[in-house]
Amino acid sequence: MASWDSLIRFAGSDGKEHWSSLPLETAPAAGLAVKGFSSIEELESGAAGVDVTVEKLLAPVLDTTIPLMCIGLNYRNHANEASLPIPATPPTWYKPCASLADPEAAIPFPKVAQDNFPDFEGELTVVLRKEMKNVSREEAPSYILGYTIGNDLTARRFQRSCGGQYTYAKGFDKFAPLGPRLVHPRHISPDANGSITTKVNGRQVQNSHFDFIFPIDEILSFVSQGTTVPAGTAILTGTPAGVGWFQDPKSELKDGDVVEVEVKPIGVLRNTIVFEK
Amino acid sequence: MASWDSLIRFAGSDGKEHWSSLPLETAPAAGLAVKGFSSIEELESGAAGVDVTVEKLLAPVLDTTIPLMCIGLNYRNHANEASLPIPATPPTWYKPCASLADPEAAIPFPKVAQDNFPDFEGELTVVLRKEMKNVSREEAPSYILGYTIGNDLTARRFQRSCGGQYTYAKGFDKFAPLGPRLVHPRHISPDANGSITTKVNGRQVQNSHFDFIFPIDEILSFVSQGTTVPAGTAILTGTPAGVGWFQDPKSELKDGDVVEVEVKPIGVLRNTIVFEK
Repeated sequence: MASWDSLIRFAGSDGKEHWSSLPLETAPAAGLAVKGFSSIEELESGAAGVDVTVEKLLAPVLDTTIPLMCIGLNYRNHANEASLPIPATPPTWYKPCASLADPEAAIPFPKVAQDNFPDFEGELTVVLRKEMKNVSREEAPSYILGYTIGNDLTARRFQRSCGGQYTYAKGFDKFAPLGPRLVHPRHISPDANGSITTKVNGRQVQNSHFDFIFPIDEILSFVSQGTTVPAGTAILTGTPAGVGWFQDPKSELKDGDVVEVEVKPIGVLRNTIVFEK
Repeated sequence: MASWDSLIRFAGSDGKEHWSSLPLETAPAAGLAVKGFSSIEELESGAAGVDVTVEKLLAPVLDTTIPLMCIGLNYRNHANEASLPIPATPPTWYKPCASLADPEAAIPFPKVAQDNFPDFEGELTVVLRKEMKNVSREEAPSYILGYTIGNDLTARRFQRSCGGQYTYAKGFDKFAPLGPRLVHPRHISPDANGSITTKVNGRQVQNSHFDFIFPIDEILSFVSQGTTVPAGTAILTGTPAGVGWFQDPKSELKDGDVVEVEVKPIGVLRNTIVFEK
Protein backbone atom coordinates (compact mmCIF):
# COMPACT_ATOMS: atom_id res chain seq x y z
CA MET A 1 0.00 0.00 0.00
CA ALA A 2 1.33 3.43 -0.96
CA SER A 3 1.75 5.44 2.24
CA TRP A 4 0.97 9.13 2.62
CA ASP A 5 1.64 11.89 5.12
CA SER A 6 -1.17 14.23 4.15
CA LEU A 7 -4.04 14.28 1.67
CA ILE A 8 -5.88 17.05 -0.13
CA ARG A 9 -9.21 16.85 -1.93
CA PHE A 10 -9.54 19.40 -4.71
CA ALA A 11 -11.18 20.52 -7.93
CA GLY A 12 -8.55 20.08 -10.63
CA SER A 13 -7.65 22.05 -13.74
CA ASP A 14 -9.37 19.23 -15.69
CA GLY A 15 -12.72 20.07 -14.10
CA LYS A 16 -12.74 16.87 -12.03
CA GLU A 17 -12.51 16.17 -8.33
CA HIS A 18 -9.32 14.47 -7.09
CA TRP A 19 -7.40 13.33 -4.05
CA SER A 20 -3.64 13.81 -3.87
CA SER A 21 -0.93 13.26 -1.29
CA LEU A 22 1.32 16.09 -0.22
CA PRO A 23 4.52 16.07 1.84
CA LEU A 24 3.98 17.71 5.23
CA GLU A 25 6.30 20.60 4.30
CA THR A 26 4.20 21.54 1.24
CA ALA A 27 1.40 23.91 2.20
CA PRO A 28 -1.89 23.01 0.49
CA ALA A 29 -2.73 25.72 -2.06
CA ALA A 30 -4.31 26.35 -5.44
CA GLY A 31 -1.76 26.23 -8.27
CA LEU A 32 0.16 23.17 -7.06
CA ALA A 33 0.99 20.61 -9.77
CA VAL A 34 0.29 17.14 -8.34
CA LYS A 35 -0.69 13.55 -9.11
CA GLY A 36 -4.46 13.24 -8.87
CA PHE A 37 -6.47 10.14 -7.85
CA SER A 38 -10.20 9.49 -7.96
CA SER A 39 -10.23 8.13 -4.41
CA ILE A 40 -8.00 7.49 -1.43
CA GLU A 41 -8.22 3.75 -2.21
CA GLU A 42 -6.80 4.38 -5.70
CA LEU A 43 -4.05 6.56 -4.25
CA GLU A 44 -3.13 3.90 -1.70
CA SER A 45 -3.22 1.16 -4.36
CA GLY A 46 0.01 2.46 -5.85
CA ALA A 47 -1.67 3.57 -9.11
CA ALA A 48 0.20 6.18 -11.16
CA GLY A 49 -2.43 8.94 -10.95
CA VAL A 50 -2.89 11.77 -13.44
CA ASP A 51 -0.99 15.03 -13.79
CA VAL A 52 -3.26 17.83 -12.68
CA THR A 53 -3.10 21.30 -11.16
CA VAL A 54 -5.01 22.19 -8.01
CA GLU A 55 -7.67 24.71 -8.98
CA LYS A 56 -9.56 24.87 -5.68
CA LEU A 57 -9.12 23.05 -2.38
CA LEU A 58 -12.18 21.18 -1.11
CA ALA A 59 -13.09 20.08 2.41
CA PRO A 60 -11.11 16.82 2.90
CA VAL A 61 -14.01 14.47 3.63
CA LEU A 62 -14.98 11.15 2.05
CA ASP A 63 -18.68 11.90 1.83
CA THR A 64 -20.37 15.30 1.63
CA THR A 65 -23.84 13.84 2.20
CA ILE A 66 -23.53 12.91 5.87
CA PRO A 67 -23.92 15.23 8.85
CA LEU A 68 -20.91 16.42 10.82
CA MET A 69 -20.66 15.42 14.46
CA CYS A 70 -19.66 17.98 17.06
CA ILE A 71 -18.35 17.60 20.61
CA GLY A 72 -18.88 20.44 23.07
CA LEU A 73 -17.24 21.62 26.27
CA ASN A 74 -14.12 19.53 25.69
CA TYR A 75 -11.52 22.02 27.00
CA ARG A 76 -11.34 22.94 30.68
CA ASN A 77 -10.29 26.48 29.80
CA HIS A 78 -13.45 26.92 27.64
CA ALA A 79 -15.74 25.36 30.27
CA ASN A 80 -14.18 27.79 32.77
CA GLU A 81 -14.72 30.90 30.60
CA ALA A 82 -18.32 29.75 30.02
CA SER A 83 -18.83 29.06 33.77
CA LEU A 84 -20.26 25.67 32.81
CA PRO A 85 -19.74 22.49 34.83
CA ILE A 86 -17.63 19.70 33.31
CA PRO A 87 -20.16 17.25 31.80
CA ALA A 88 -20.14 13.60 32.89
CA THR A 89 -20.36 12.38 29.27
CA PRO A 90 -19.49 14.25 26.02
CA PRO A 91 -22.06 16.77 24.75
CA THR A 92 -22.74 15.92 21.08
CA TRP A 93 -24.80 17.39 18.27
CA TYR A 94 -24.86 17.37 14.48
CA LYS A 95 -24.33 20.05 11.88
CA PRO A 96 -26.32 19.08 8.73
CA CYS A 97 -24.42 18.22 5.54
CA ALA A 98 -25.29 21.60 3.95
CA SER A 99 -23.18 23.24 6.66
CA LEU A 100 -19.99 21.80 5.16
CA ALA A 101 -17.74 24.43 3.52
CA ASP A 102 -14.37 24.39 1.78
CA PRO A 103 -11.11 25.95 2.93
CA GLU A 104 -10.74 29.56 1.66
CA ALA A 105 -14.52 29.69 1.07
CA ALA A 106 -16.48 32.84 1.80
CA ILE A 107 -19.05 31.99 4.48
CA PRO A 108 -22.41 33.68 3.88
CA PHE A 109 -23.95 34.82 7.17
CA PRO A 110 -27.73 35.08 6.77
CA LYS A 111 -29.50 38.00 8.45
CA VAL A 112 -30.77 35.79 11.26
CA ALA A 113 -27.18 34.85 12.16
CA GLN A 114 -25.82 38.40 11.72
CA ASP A 115 -28.33 39.60 14.33
CA ASN A 116 -27.49 36.89 16.86
CA PHE A 117 -23.78 37.27 17.55
CA PRO A 118 -21.65 35.61 14.85
CA ASP A 119 -18.77 33.79 16.48
CA PHE A 120 -15.96 31.34 15.67
CA GLU A 121 -14.70 28.09 17.24
CA GLY A 122 -11.42 26.60 16.05
CA GLU A 123 -11.41 22.80 16.45
CA LEU A 124 -9.20 19.80 15.79
CA THR A 125 -11.30 17.51 13.59
CA VAL A 126 -11.16 13.73 13.17
CA VAL A 127 -12.24 12.03 9.93
CA LEU A 128 -13.24 8.36 10.14
CA ARG A 129 -11.92 5.77 7.71
CA LYS A 130 -14.49 3.08 8.47
CA GLU A 131 -18.03 2.80 9.77
CA MET A 132 -18.01 2.57 13.57
CA LYS A 133 -20.37 0.77 15.93
CA ASN A 134 -19.68 -0.43 19.48
CA VAL A 135 -15.97 0.34 19.21
CA SER A 136 -13.78 0.12 22.33
CA ARG A 137 -11.26 2.83 23.30
CA GLU A 138 -8.48 0.41 22.36
CA GLU A 139 -9.92 -0.20 18.89
CA ALA A 140 -10.83 3.45 18.22
CA PRO A 141 -7.51 4.70 16.80
CA SER A 142 -7.71 2.21 13.91
CA TYR A 143 -10.91 3.94 12.72
CA ILE A 144 -9.19 7.31 12.22
CA LEU A 145 -8.31 8.22 8.64
CA GLY A 146 -6.69 11.48 9.62
CA TYR A 147 -7.00 14.87 11.24
CA THR A 148 -8.04 18.18 9.76
CA ILE A 149 -9.19 21.55 11.13
CA GLY A 150 -12.76 22.75 11.58
CA ASN A 151 -14.39 26.05 12.43
CA ASP A 152 -17.67 25.48 14.30
CA LEU A 153 -19.24 28.81 13.27
CA THR A 154 -22.07 29.86 15.55
CA ALA A 155 -24.82 32.46 15.93
CA ARG A 156 -24.18 32.55 19.65
CA ARG A 157 -27.48 33.88 21.02
CA PHE A 158 -29.40 30.87 19.68
CA GLN A 159 -27.40 28.56 21.93
CA ARG A 160 -29.45 29.98 24.81
CA SER A 161 -32.75 30.94 23.18
CA CYS A 162 -33.34 27.46 21.72
CA GLY A 163 -33.84 25.98 25.18
CA GLY A 164 -30.09 25.33 25.45
CA GLN A 165 -29.86 23.11 22.33
CA TYR A 166 -26.88 24.11 20.16
CA THR A 167 -27.97 22.68 16.80
CA TYR A 168 -29.82 25.66 15.32
CA ALA A 169 -27.13 28.18 16.31
CA LYS A 170 -24.52 26.14 14.46
CA GLY A 171 -26.41 24.56 11.58
CA PHE A 172 -26.66 27.34 8.99
CA ASP A 173 -25.44 26.61 5.46
CA LYS A 174 -21.62 26.60 5.24
CA PHE A 175 -21.17 27.06 9.00
CA ALA A 176 -18.66 24.17 9.07
CA PRO A 177 -15.58 24.93 6.97
CA LEU A 178 -13.06 22.05 7.10
CA GLY A 179 -9.51 21.82 5.81
CA PRO A 180 -7.08 22.57 4.34
CA ARG A 181 -5.96 18.91 4.36
CA LEU A 182 -6.03 15.60 6.14
CA VAL A 183 -2.89 14.66 8.04
CA HIS A 184 -2.06 11.05 8.86
CA PRO A 185 -2.67 10.16 12.54
CA ARG A 186 1.01 9.31 13.07
CA HIS A 187 1.85 13.02 12.70
CA ILE A 188 -0.73 14.38 15.16
CA SER A 189 -0.56 14.19 18.95
CA PRO A 190 -4.13 14.75 20.11
CA ASP A 191 -2.90 15.34 23.64
CA ALA A 192 -1.32 18.14 25.62
CA ASN A 193 1.67 18.26 23.23
CA GLY A 194 -0.45 19.49 20.32
CA SER A 195 -2.04 22.92 20.14
CA ILE A 196 -4.52 25.04 18.20
CA THR A 197 -4.53 28.76 17.42
CA THR A 198 -7.26 31.00 15.97
CA LYS A 199 -6.76 34.49 14.54
CA VAL A 200 -9.33 37.06 13.43
CA ASN A 201 -7.90 39.54 10.93
CA GLY A 202 -4.42 38.49 12.06
CA ARG A 203 -5.08 39.03 15.78
CA GLN A 204 -4.70 35.89 17.90
CA VAL A 205 -7.92 35.05 19.77
CA GLN A 206 -7.50 31.38 20.71
CA ASN A 207 -4.28 29.59 21.63
CA SER A 208 -4.40 26.37 23.60
CA HIS A 209 -2.82 22.99 24.02
CA PHE A 210 -5.19 20.07 23.39
CA ASP A 211 -6.47 20.22 26.95
CA PHE A 212 -9.18 17.64 26.19
CA ILE A 213 -11.65 16.63 28.90
CA PHE A 214 -12.62 13.64 26.73
CA PRO A 215 -9.68 12.21 24.77
CA ILE A 216 -10.27 11.27 21.12
CA ASP A 217 -10.35 7.50 21.72
CA GLU A 218 -12.91 7.95 24.50
CA ILE A 219 -15.08 10.14 22.25
CA LEU A 220 -15.03 7.64 19.39
CA SER A 221 -15.92 4.75 21.68
CA PHE A 222 -18.71 6.71 23.39
CA VAL A 223 -20.44 7.99 20.25
CA SER A 224 -20.36 4.53 18.63
CA GLN A 225 -22.22 2.68 21.41
CA GLY A 226 -25.44 1.37 19.88
CA THR A 227 -24.96 3.88 17.08
CA THR A 228 -23.79 3.41 13.50
CA VAL A 229 -21.39 6.25 12.70
CA PRO A 230 -20.81 6.30 8.92
CA ALA A 231 -17.40 6.01 7.27
CA GLY A 232 -16.16 9.47 6.39
CA THR A 233 -17.86 11.19 9.32
CA ALA A 234 -16.00 14.31 10.46
CA ILE A 235 -16.03 14.86 14.22
CA LEU A 236 -15.20 18.35 15.50
CA THR A 237 -13.66 17.80 18.91
CA GLY A 238 -14.47 21.04 20.75
CA THR A 239 -12.99 24.51 21.06
CA PRO A 240 -10.67 26.09 23.65
CA ALA A 241 -11.11 29.41 25.49
CA GLY A 242 -11.18 32.65 23.54
CA VAL A 243 -14.46 32.76 21.60
CA GLY A 244 -15.86 36.28 21.09
CA TRP A 245 -18.91 35.83 23.32
CA PHE A 246 -16.80 35.48 26.48
CA GLN A 247 -14.50 38.46 25.90
CA ASP A 248 -14.85 41.66 27.88
CA PRO A 249 -16.24 43.49 26.02
CA LYS A 250 -17.90 40.80 23.88
CA SER A 251 -16.49 40.76 20.35
CA GLU A 252 -18.62 39.38 17.50
CA LEU A 253 -17.51 38.62 13.94
CA LYS A 254 -18.20 41.35 11.39
CA ASP A 255 -18.73 41.45 7.65
CA GLY A 256 -15.39 40.86 5.90
CA ASP A 257 -13.57 39.36 8.89
CA VAL A 258 -10.97 36.72 8.04
CA VAL A 259 -10.81 33.79 10.47
CA GLU A 260 -7.74 31.55 10.47
CA VAL A 261 -7.48 28.38 12.54
CA GLU A 262 -4.03 26.74 12.71
CA VAL A 263 -2.92 23.32 13.88
CA LYS A 264 0.63 22.21 13.05
CA PRO A 265 1.41 20.40 10.78
CA ILE A 266 -2.06 20.45 9.22
CA GLY A 267 -1.80 24.10 8.31
CA VAL A 268 -4.22 27.01 8.31
CA LEU A 269 -7.98 26.87 7.69
CA ARG A 270 -8.82 30.34 6.39
CA ASN A 271 -12.34 31.67 5.68
CA THR A 272 -13.90 35.07 5.14
CA ILE A 273 -17.18 36.09 6.76
CA VAL A 274 -19.62 37.70 4.32
CA PHE A 275 -22.86 39.21 5.64
CA GLU A 276 -25.69 38.50 3.21
CA LYS A 277 -27.67 41.56 2.16
CA MET B 1 -52.74 14.82 -10.95
CA ALA B 2 -54.13 11.79 -9.16
CA SER B 3 -55.07 12.87 -5.64
CA TRP B 4 -54.57 10.78 -2.52
CA ASP B 5 -55.70 10.84 1.08
CA SER B 6 -52.95 8.74 2.60
CA LEU B 7 -49.79 7.01 1.42
CA ILE B 8 -47.91 3.95 2.58
CA ARG B 9 -44.35 2.91 1.70
CA PHE B 10 -43.83 -0.83 1.89
CA ALA B 11 -41.86 -3.89 0.88
CA GLY B 12 -44.06 -5.80 -1.55
CA SER B 13 -44.68 -9.48 -2.16
CA ASP B 14 -42.57 -9.03 -5.33
CA GLY B 15 -39.50 -8.16 -3.23
CA LYS B 16 -39.56 -4.53 -4.33
CA GLU B 17 -40.23 -1.27 -2.51
CA HIS B 18 -43.46 0.58 -3.39
CA TRP B 19 -45.68 3.50 -2.54
CA SER B 20 -49.44 3.12 -2.56
CA SER B 21 -52.41 5.27 -1.66
CA LEU B 22 -54.97 4.09 0.88
CA PRO B 23 -58.40 5.47 1.77
CA LEU B 24 -58.40 6.98 5.26
CA GLU B 25 -60.73 4.27 6.54
CA THR B 26 -58.33 1.46 5.54
CA ALA B 27 -55.82 0.80 8.32
CA PRO B 28 -52.28 0.28 6.96
CA ALA B 29 -51.28 -3.35 7.46
CA ALA B 30 -49.34 -6.23 5.98
CA GLY B 31 -51.47 -8.42 3.75
CA LEU B 32 -53.36 -5.63 1.96
CA ALA B 33 -53.67 -6.07 -1.83
CA VAL B 34 -52.95 -2.68 -3.43
CA LYS B 35 -51.68 -0.85 -6.51
CA GLY B 36 -47.93 -0.25 -6.10
CA PHE B 37 -45.91 2.67 -7.53
CA SER B 38 -42.17 3.23 -7.61
CA SER B 39 -42.50 6.80 -6.36
CA ILE B 40 -45.07 9.34 -5.20
CA GLU B 41 -44.54 11.19 -8.48
CA GLU B 42 -45.52 8.08 -10.44
CA LEU B 43 -48.55 7.57 -8.22
CA GLU B 44 -49.63 11.19 -8.71
CA SER B 45 -49.06 10.96 -12.49
CA GLY B 46 -52.12 8.79 -12.84
CA ALA B 47 -50.13 5.72 -13.91
CA ALA B 48 -51.86 2.35 -13.50
CA GLY B 49 -49.44 0.86 -10.95
CA VAL B 50 -48.82 -2.82 -10.34
CA ASP B 51 -50.87 -5.32 -8.35
CA VAL B 52 -48.93 -6.20 -5.25
CA THR B 53 -49.49 -7.32 -1.66
CA VAL B 54 -48.05 -5.40 1.29
CA GLU B 55 -45.44 -7.62 2.89
CA LYS B 56 -44.00 -5.12 5.40
CA LEU B 57 -44.76 -1.47 6.09
CA LEU B 58 -41.78 0.90 5.88
CA ALA B 59 -41.26 4.33 7.43
CA PRO B 60 -43.10 6.70 5.02
CA VAL B 61 -40.18 8.97 4.09
CA LEU B 62 -38.81 10.00 0.70
CA ASP B 63 -35.17 9.58 1.61
CA THR B 64 -33.68 7.29 4.25
CA THR B 65 -30.23 8.90 3.97
CA ILE B 66 -30.95 12.25 5.60
CA PRO B 67 -31.10 13.00 9.31
CA LEU B 68 -34.40 13.54 11.10
CA MET B 69 -35.06 16.93 12.64
CA CYS B 70 -36.55 17.15 16.12
CA ILE B 71 -38.28 19.99 17.94
CA GLY B 72 -38.23 20.04 21.73
CA LEU B 73 -40.35 21.57 24.48
CA ASN B 74 -43.23 22.30 22.13
CA TYR B 75 -46.12 21.51 24.51
CA ARG B 76 -46.84 23.68 27.54
CA ASN B 77 -47.98 20.63 29.50
CA HIS B 78 -44.59 18.91 28.88
CA ALA B 79 -42.59 22.07 29.69
CA ASN B 80 -44.58 22.25 32.93
CA GLU B 81 -43.97 18.63 33.94
CA ALA B 82 -40.25 19.15 33.16
CA SER B 83 -40.20 22.45 35.11
CA LEU B 84 -38.45 24.03 32.13
CA PRO B 85 -39.04 27.61 30.96
CA ILE B 86 -40.76 28.16 27.60
CA PRO B 87 -37.92 28.77 25.11
CA ALA B 88 -37.86 31.98 23.05
CA THR B 89 -37.10 30.04 19.82
CA PRO B 90 -37.66 26.34 19.04
CA PRO B 91 -35.10 23.88 20.45
CA THR B 92 -33.89 21.72 17.55
CA TRP B 93 -31.57 18.75 17.11
CA TYR B 94 -31.04 15.91 14.66
CA LYS B 95 -31.36 12.18 14.94
CA PRO B 96 -28.94 10.53 12.45
CA CYS B 97 -30.35 8.59 9.50
CA ALA B 98 -29.48 5.24 11.14
CA SER B 99 -32.02 6.08 13.84
CA LEU B 100 -34.91 5.69 11.39
CA ALA B 101 -37.06 2.60 12.02
CA ASP B 102 -40.17 1.12 10.44
CA PRO B 103 -43.64 0.77 11.93
CA GLU B 104 -44.06 -2.55 13.79
CA ALA B 105 -40.24 -2.86 14.00
CA ALA B 106 -38.59 -4.25 17.11
CA ILE B 107 -36.34 -1.53 18.53
CA PRO B 108 -33.04 -2.90 19.85
CA PHE B 109 -32.02 -1.05 23.00
CA PRO B 110 -28.23 -1.31 23.45
CA LYS B 111 -26.86 -1.85 26.95
CA VAL B 112 -25.84 1.81 27.25
CA ALA B 113 -29.45 2.88 26.66
CA GLN B 114 -30.95 0.13 28.89
CA ASP B 115 -28.88 1.48 31.79
CA ASN B 116 -29.90 5.10 31.27
CA PHE B 117 -33.68 5.14 31.54
CA PRO B 118 -35.33 4.06 28.26
CA ASP B 119 -38.28 6.32 27.56
CA PHE B 120 -40.83 7.14 24.83
CA GLU B 121 -42.08 10.39 23.25
CA GLY B 122 -45.06 10.26 20.89
CA GLU B 123 -44.92 13.05 18.30
CA LEU B 124 -46.85 14.37 15.31
CA THR B 125 -44.33 14.33 12.45
CA VAL B 126 -44.20 16.48 9.30
CA VAL B 127 -42.59 15.22 6.09
CA LEU B 128 -41.41 17.83 3.57
CA ARG B 129 -42.27 17.60 -0.11
CA LYS B 130 -39.66 20.09 -1.32
CA GLU B 131 -36.30 21.47 -0.24
CA MET B 132 -36.80 24.49 2.04
CA LYS B 133 -34.66 27.58 2.50
CA ASN B 134 -35.75 31.02 3.78
CA VAL B 135 -39.42 30.08 3.72
CA SER B 136 -41.98 32.44 5.27
CA ARG B 137 -44.76 31.28 7.62
CA GLU B 138 -47.24 31.96 4.83
CA GLU B 139 -45.34 29.82 2.31
CA ALA B 140 -44.57 27.01 4.76
CA PRO B 141 -47.75 24.89 4.37
CA SER B 142 -47.03 24.36 0.65
CA TYR B 143 -43.81 22.52 1.61
CA ILE B 144 -45.64 19.84 3.60
CA LEU B 145 -46.09 16.49 1.87
CA GLY B 146 -48.02 15.00 4.75
CA TYR B 147 -48.14 14.03 8.39
CA THR B 148 -47.10 10.82 10.07
CA ILE B 149 -46.35 9.71 13.64
CA GLY B 150 -42.94 9.49 15.30
CA ASN B 151 -41.63 8.06 18.55
CA ASP B 152 -38.59 10.04 19.75
CA LEU B 153 -37.11 7.19 21.80
CA THR B 154 -34.68 8.39 24.42
CA ALA B 155 -32.15 7.14 26.97
CA ARG B 156 -33.28 9.85 29.35
CA ARG B 157 -30.28 10.21 31.67
CA PHE B 158 -28.00 11.28 28.78
CA GLN B 159 -30.14 14.37 28.22
CA ARG B 160 -28.58 15.73 31.41
CA SER B 161 -25.16 14.09 31.53
CA CYS B 162 -24.17 15.29 28.04
CA GLY B 163 -24.04 18.91 29.18
CA GLY B 164 -27.75 19.30 28.40
CA GLN B 165 -27.45 18.38 24.70
CA TYR B 166 -30.17 15.90 23.67
CA THR B 167 -28.57 14.38 20.56
CA TYR B 168 -26.73 11.43 22.11
CA ALA B 169 -29.67 10.38 24.30
CA LYS B 170 -31.89 10.14 21.24
CA GLY B 171 -29.54 9.12 18.42
CA PHE B 172 -29.12 5.37 18.89
CA ASP B 173 -29.83 3.09 15.92
CA LYS B 174 -33.57 2.73 15.27
CA PHE B 175 -34.54 5.23 17.98
CA ALA B 176 -36.87 7.02 15.53
CA PRO B 177 -39.67 4.75 14.34
CA LEU B 178 -42.02 6.58 11.94
CA GLY B 179 -45.35 5.55 10.46
CA PRO B 180 -47.62 3.79 9.78
CA ARG B 181 -48.50 6.11 6.87
CA LEU B 182 -48.47 9.66 5.54
CA VAL B 183 -51.77 11.51 5.64
CA HIS B 184 -52.48 14.44 3.35
CA PRO B 185 -52.30 17.83 5.11
CA ARG B 186 -55.97 18.56 4.34
CA HIS B 187 -56.96 15.80 6.77
CA ILE B 188 -54.83 16.94 9.73
CA SER B 189 -55.46 19.91 11.99
CA PRO B 190 -52.12 20.62 13.65
CA ASP B 191 -53.82 22.84 16.20
CA ALA B 192 -55.80 22.38 19.39
CA ASN B 193 -58.47 20.33 17.55
CA GLY B 194 -56.05 17.48 16.88
CA SER B 195 -54.66 15.20 19.56
CA ILE B 196 -52.10 12.49 20.22
CA THR B 197 -52.20 9.48 22.53
CA THR B 198 -49.46 7.08 23.64
CA LYS B 199 -49.97 3.68 25.28
CA VAL B 200 -47.42 1.32 26.86
CA ASN B 201 -48.67 -2.28 26.93
CA GLY B 202 -52.18 -0.93 26.39
CA ARG B 203 -52.05 1.55 29.30
CA GLN B 204 -52.52 5.19 28.24
CA VAL B 205 -49.53 7.33 29.24
CA GLN B 206 -49.83 10.42 27.00
CA ASN B 207 -53.06 12.08 25.82
CA SER B 208 -52.99 15.69 24.70
CA HIS B 209 -54.41 18.12 22.21
CA PHE B 210 -51.80 19.69 19.91
CA ASP B 211 -51.02 22.36 22.46
CA PHE B 212 -48.07 23.63 20.39
CA ILE B 213 -45.93 26.48 21.68
CA PHE B 214 -44.50 26.87 18.16
CA PRO B 215 -47.09 26.13 15.43
CA ILE B 216 -45.96 24.03 12.46
CA ASP B 217 -45.73 26.97 10.01
CA GLU B 218 -43.58 28.92 12.46
CA ILE B 219 -41.27 25.91 12.96
CA LEU B 220 -40.81 25.38 9.22
CA SER B 221 -40.06 29.05 8.63
CA PHE B 222 -37.64 29.24 11.57
CA VAL B 223 -35.59 26.13 10.73
CA SER B 224 -35.26 27.18 7.06
CA GLN B 225 -33.66 30.57 7.70
CA GLY B 226 -30.19 30.48 6.15
CA THR B 227 -30.45 26.71 6.18
CA THR B 228 -31.13 24.23 3.37
CA VAL B 229 -33.56 21.62 4.68
CA PRO B 230 -33.64 18.70 2.21
CA ALA B 231 -36.80 17.46 0.50
CA GLY B 232 -38.13 14.46 2.39
CA THR B 233 -36.92 15.64 5.78
CA ALA B 234 -39.08 14.33 8.63
CA ILE B 235 -39.58 16.82 11.46
CA LEU B 236 -40.77 15.46 14.81
CA THR B 237 -42.70 18.30 16.41
CA GLY B 238 -42.34 17.64 20.12
CA THR B 239 -44.05 15.50 22.76
CA PRO B 240 -46.77 16.28 25.31
CA ALA B 241 -46.78 15.53 29.06
CA GLY B 242 -46.65 11.94 30.25
CA VAL B 243 -43.15 10.59 29.51
CA GLY B 244 -41.91 8.02 32.01
CA TRP B 245 -39.15 10.16 33.54
CA PHE B 246 -41.62 12.64 35.01
CA GLN B 247 -44.01 10.11 36.58
CA ASP B 248 -44.12 9.54 40.32
CA PRO B 249 -42.61 7.04 40.68
CA LYS B 250 -40.53 7.27 37.49
CA SER B 251 -41.46 4.54 35.01
CA GLU B 252 -38.90 3.42 32.43
CA LEU B 253 -39.48 1.17 29.40
CA LYS B 254 -38.63 -2.50 29.92
CA ASP B 255 -37.64 -5.36 27.67
CA GLY B 256 -40.67 -6.48 25.65
CA ASP B 257 -42.77 -3.36 26.22
CA VAL B 258 -45.09 -2.43 23.34
CA VAL B 259 -45.38 1.31 22.67
CA GLU B 260 -48.30 2.59 20.57
CA VAL B 261 -48.64 6.21 19.48
CA GLU B 262 -51.97 7.19 17.92
CA VAL B 263 -53.02 10.26 15.94
CA LYS B 264 -56.35 10.16 14.11
CA PRO B 265 -56.74 9.59 11.16
CA ILE B 266 -53.08 8.57 10.66
CA GLY B 267 -53.43 5.47 12.78
CA VAL B 268 -51.22 3.73 15.31
CA LEU B 269 -47.41 3.58 15.30
CA ARG B 270 -46.60 0.37 17.19
CA ASN B 271 -43.11 -0.82 18.18
CA THR B 272 -41.70 -3.35 20.60
CA ILE B 273 -38.72 -2.60 22.84
CA VAL B 274 -36.10 -5.35 22.80
CA PHE B 275 -33.16 -5.15 25.20
CA GLU B 276 -29.98 -6.35 23.47
CA LYS B 277 -28.08 -9.03 25.37
